[in-house]
Amino acid sequence: MFVKNAWYCAGWDFMVSQGKNALLARQLAGERVVLYRKPDGAVVALEDRCPHRQAALSLGAKEGDSLRCMYHGMKFSPEGQCTEVPGMTRIPDRACVRPFPVVERENWIWVWMGDPALADPGLIPVSVGYSHPDWNMKTSQMHVAANYRLEIANLADLSHLAWVHQKSLGGDDAETRTRYTNIKAQYTVLPRGLRTEYEVRSVPAPNFLRHLFPAEARFDLSFDITHTVPCTWVLHFQAFVADGKEEGAPTGDPVANTMTCQAVVPNDADSVEYYFSWGSHKDFDFPGLSDLLREVLDVAFLEDAHVLEAQHLRVTEKPDHPQVALVHDVGPTKMLKVLDKLLAEEQLAAAAPATPAKQRGAVAA
Amino acid sequence: MFVKNAWYCAGWDFMVSQGKNALLARQLAGERVVLYRKPDGAVVALEDRCPHRQAALSLGAKEGDSLRCMYHGMKFSPEGQCTEVPGMTRIPDRACVRPFPVVERENWIWVWMGDPALADPGLIPVSVGYSHPDWNMKTSQMHVAANYRLEIANLADLSHLAWVHQKSLGGDDAETRTRYTNIKAQYTVLPRGLRTEYEVRSVPAPNFLRHLFPAEARFDLSFDITHTVPCTWVLHFQAFVADGKEEGAPTGDPVANTMTCQAVVPNDADSVEYYFSWGSHKDFDFPGLSDLLREVLDVAFLEDAHVLEAQHLRVTEKPDHPQVALVHDVGPTKMLKVLDKLLAEEQLAAAAPATPAKQRGAVAA
Amino acid sequence: MFVKNAWYCAGWDFMVSQGKNALLARQLAGERVVLYRKPDGAVVALEDRCPHRQAALSLGAKEGDSLRCMYHGMKFSPEGQCTEVPGMTRIPDRACVRPFPVVERENWIWVWMGDPALADPGLIPVSVGYSHPDWNMKTSQMHVAANYRLEIANLADLSHLAWVHQKSLGGDDAETRTRYTNIKAQYTVLPRGLRTEYEVRSVPAPNFLRHLFPAEARFDLSFDITHTVPCTWVLHFQAFVADGKEEGAPTGDPVANTMTCQAVVPNDADSVEYYFSWGSHKDFDFPGLSDLLREVLDVAFLEDAHVLEAQHLRVTEKPDHPQVALVHDVGPTKMLKVLDKLLAEEQLAAAAPATPAKQRGAVAA
Repeated sequence: MFVKNAWYCAGWDFMVSQGKNALLARQLAGERVVLYRKPDGAVVALEDRCPHRQAALSLGAKEGDSLRCMYHGMKFSPEGQCTEVPGMTRIPDRACVRPFPVVERENWIWVWMGDPALADPGLIPVSVGYSHPDWNMKTSQMHVAANYRLEIANLADLSHLAWVHQKSLGGDDAETRTRYTNIKAQYTVLPRGLRTEYEVRSVPAPNFLRHLFPAEARFDLSFDITHTVPCTWVLHFQAFVADGKEEGAPTGDPVANTMTCQAVVPNDADSVEYYFSWGSHKDFDFPGLSDLLREVLDVAFLEDAHVLEAQHLRVTEKPDHPQVALVHDVGPTKMLKVLDKLLAEEQLAAAAPATPAKQRGAVAA
Repeated sequence: MFVKNAWYCAGWDFMVSQGKNALLARQLAGERVVLYRKPDGAVVALEDRCPHRQAALSLGAKEGDSLRCMYHGMKFSPEGQCTEVPGMTRIPDRACVRPFPVVERENWIWVWMGDPALADPGLIPVSVGYSHPDWNMKTSQMHVAANYRLEIANLADLSHLAWVHQKSLGGDDAETRTRYTNIKAQYTVLPRGLRTEYEVRSVPAPNFLRHLFPAEARFDLSFDITHTVPCTWVLHFQAFVADGKEEGAPTGDPVANTMTCQAVVPNDADSVEYYFSWGSHKDFDFPGLSDLLREVLDVAFLEDAHVLEAQHLRVTEKPDHPQVALVHDVGPTKMLKVLDKLLAEEQLAAAAPATPAKQRGAVAA
Repeated sequence: MFVKNAWYCAGWDFMVSQGKNALLARQLAGERVVLYRKPDGAVVALEDRCPHRQAALSLGAKEGDSLRCMYHGMKFSPEGQCTEVPGMTRIPDRACVRPFPVVERENWIWVWMGDPALADPGLIPVSVGYSHPDWNMKTSQMHVAANYRLEIANLADLSHLAWVHQKSLGGDDAETRTRYTNIKAQYTVLPRGLRTEYEVRSVPAPNFLRHLFPAEARFDLSFDITHTVPCTWVLHFQAFVADGKEEGAPTGDPVANTMTCQAVVPNDADSVEYYFSWGSHKDFDFPGLSDLLREVLDVAFLEDAHVLEAQHLRVTEKPDHPQVALVHDVGPTKMLKVLDKLLAEEQLAAAAPATPAKQRGAVAA
């Protein structure tokens, strides 16, 4: 169901403060995780489940570097080792809670849900945080009651900007619809994701920006998207005055240069948390622009949620309903194939008999 | 669970207007259906499930006679054929959505949930709509969290007017109780339902009307009910000044002549939508009467819902709990037997091996 | 899942008044029960399920000593025998509803959920009601969405007063924590429960009372707890001025002498109703004290509910998650073992083939 050996976003760094009660409870890929920040600033992630009788550690208390379960007072180090059981001198052998590797990068907190030995920070999706000096990123978040595979398919094909987002990110005019539904993308399958590059030529400004330009203004839009398992989606989006050409890199005057970073995090099979940002490069920013970009994402992702939640309900009702393939499925199919390949590999590894070679591998890991 | 080859009521005609966004989403016998009205006024019903990836068509847009899915822009004719896929020149073979036969009759919209070849409008239950020139019908609706079989049993035996509806449709006096619990009905089993006729003799006015008459007034009540699968219930109800007789057609002065039309529509196994009306023949109407009839049904069906929802909970908990048969079960048993016979026939037909004879039958159908 | 042959608390006596509509609907150990009070004051408990078609008898009406189902008017004696079916002269053979033995004691209503022949009032847990002449008991109640086994474990080990209840019943100071987490209890396993006796020496007053005493005041606390299946918990709690000793009966001046009676009643596997009281012996009472005791239980049991509901969620998610044993499990383990022994005995009896000996036993029972 979920790739375990992957980095899952647990939210923005400001969600885990030095506050006395700043214990962040999350569900990540079906697992309950509690996050907190040590006095030195490092973030700790532990399974949110006391090894005694499964009390929620997120109802506990921070104590120096440690986390104390407030049911019976067991104290755990950031590594998940029990260091104190009030009333006992000897700490039981198995009194430990599963720790998860954590990395903060670009204002996002990343948790590795699989084998810690495989937790390579190099696998963390590249993104741009709100603290980045060159970009004016604005952040937001949303809960969506849909399986994350539906979100993947949604993000891997932007033709829906002409329909779902006709009033916000896209448009309901014939040019926008024609251009968006005829995108010719260049796909590069990555070991853990998909890069998608394309231009949309000679379109009016998206609906939410159209009032800023003359009616006859046309733009060339450039998309460079990196989609990573489970579902981190980073888009470098640029706009240029349309140069009248149909191919090649746009040569018109640059109008906008923006980044949007989006992490869709499966809680379980039926819902996701969505952490997203959008912002302008500071060279192209002007007062209110980046706030507007964030604002339109709030609107647009509610439009998506409306569609995806109804779709999730129907897919859940009829999981085996026949499907019809469209040209727009190319991106979604490629990205879901990457996901399914990783899922299959993990299942195969889990099912494999323990051969000496494998045992060595496990030890090495 | 549900008879497929039957007409299901999707509500009143005014629920499907020419409004731009007037797409009506319904669950009928477990299936999701979207209804809309074409410019020529005809109502269309399609499965509310895009053949691409199960997006809700009810979140789409009307476009002339067609319905466009607003996820990826697929356009469907009223017959469910895909006529356009933006971005594609060739329409995939299986790109169609299931259409359902629809008929409007007496202000109700009827949808046939089974084999379209069998959709005989002659099977639509006879009723009286709010536009009927002779009757002053008033309409209402209710959601009830109970299986529709419990509603069938409720409607097929009106002895409960003396108990559930003692404050509304019935009465808590000894005469009402005695008369209603000793009803001798004449039953006529129909191919798809049950006709039930009887008189209730020499009773006080029902509680909600009692203030209109002297305390000693007694009436003979005449009931003529047609109950149709799945659960449409039409009652011609008349009242006469009691003639003191125990048998035969009432001969006293007529006091009331009313029709009530009720469609109990299973959404799924756990709830129904209830569309109902009550009104007086215009020859017997006076200001406020028909409004009062509608008003008391709102009260009475909340009384029923209270009982049926608690019953549904208990039946769901203990589906195999032993039952005791009462004399009042005659009507419910007859009507449920009609339902079960149709269900069994459909199951048998579905399970039958495809013999040449059967294949011919299928083609003929 | 539930011991059947046991007394289950259905609430306080004032919940079953002589009111016309005073029909109390309960779930006890998974069974639906309706309770009402006869004109002579005796309380009747019947299965809340009409034998006809499972209508809720709790939506019925009291009629003298009897209960009338208000769906079709069937009337039941306090013994569950049907005595009238309106419209029928002969009452069907199996027209009866299961009666449950009921006893009122100390303002609590007790219902026996198993074989009536085994319903020995001597098995009712000893408690002190709000009408008791010597104690000023105050009552309250709470719903908790947790399995009752988690409540048993919670009540059978009070070391959590130093953690869960640090702001209310316990304290967050080092002395309180040390003393509460090093309790040496004396356990006496009873046929249907567990008696637990211990002292907590030289601790500050519990947090909710601390403002009443000088900061340096220390107390010896005496606990005498009787825990009974399924989960009735009665504590005789006394406080004395600390005598400086570590062992033996406290010899300091008595400061408080209280009783708290608590019945945790499983509705089903996922929730309990909690009826509880706390009060001072009248010789030690002063204005507002007993109200304060009741008040702090409302606070403290919300603290517990917060912990137990999160724990219940996690245990439900991972029922087979490994557990670590702590010294604090001694009480919980003993009490759950008593429960499990009774459960196993009942399962064994239910599964046993009917031998002549057993049949005699059943007859004798």
